[in-house]
Amino acid sequence: MNKEDLTSAYRDYIACLNKQDWQKLSRFVHKDVQRNGRKLGLDGYRAMLEKDFEDVPDLSFKIDLLVSEPPTIASRLRFGCTPKGQLFGLPVNGRKISFAENVFYIFRDDKIELVWSVIDTVAIEAQLEHTEAEPEISGDAHV
Amino acid sequence: MNKEDLTSAYRDYIACLNKQDWQKLSRFVHKDVQRNGRKLGLDGYRAMLEKDFEDVPDLSFKIDLLVSEPPTIASRLRFGCTPKGQLFGLPVNGRKISFAENVFYIFRDDKIELVWSVIDTVAIEAQLEHTEAEPEISGDAHV
Repeated sequence: MNKEDLTSAYRDYIACLNKQDWQKLSRFVHKDVQRNGRKLGLDGYRAMLEKDFEDVPDLSFKIDLLVSEPPTIASRLRFGCTPKGQLFGLPVNGRKISFAENVFYIFRDDKIELVWSVIDTVAIEAQLEHTEAEPEISGDAHV
Repeated sequence: MNKEDLTSAYRDYIACLNKQDWQKLSRFVHKDVQRNGRKLGLDGYRAMLEKDFEDVPDLSFKIDLLVSEPPTIASRLRFGCTPKGQLFGLPVNGRKISFAENVFYIFRDDKIELVWSVIDTVAIEAQLEHTEAEPEISGDAHV
């Protein structure tokens, strides 16, 4: 794929996640996909995403920065959400949090095969230190 | 700058860091540089880097992945080092650790003006859980 097609495919992938349209995931994700060196495969990758939406019912992926150079995409994703219980081992428990993920995707056969992701858990920890538990009302913590 | 010049400037910037050649830093870093939303300015940015090398005497920046689309660079940096004491609030205390940083740089006037960085501190925590303190001998923990 050229740069425009790769960018377009990536934006369609993010839209697919936000719709939780798992039937279409195989259009974007390679059957041998790996994340941070772990071989997940398409089924494992889908299971990871489904678990993410289970833990974070209002999860939504927003692209803040996008850099494309085939076969690689780099994306800074931004999340504002209210995880139910723990997230990344942190006791969020219904508080509203905001955090970023800086992630690289390497495509093969027009699909995502390698993912190298780093999530800003330090920002979440900082927000939890500065907010009280508010299970019913959204907090106003921001990164 | 076009893509080739931007990539070349970024590689020269990384070489400058590895040489700790602070006199040349202003060739690459804008006087109004910000990191993760914090206005550091060139002096503050240099002070941050000098502190990094003080805390981690064998610090070395290695580019694992590089994606360039002017005016933005995305880079996955890889570090293998032995911080003396604490690093990112974690008690490393002379153990050998390996970790990544996924970082975006937005250039203005041919210099780095905005930096959006996420460091994989979770990987460091995992390594500390699986190694004993070895102040004299390098451990063999890897991500």
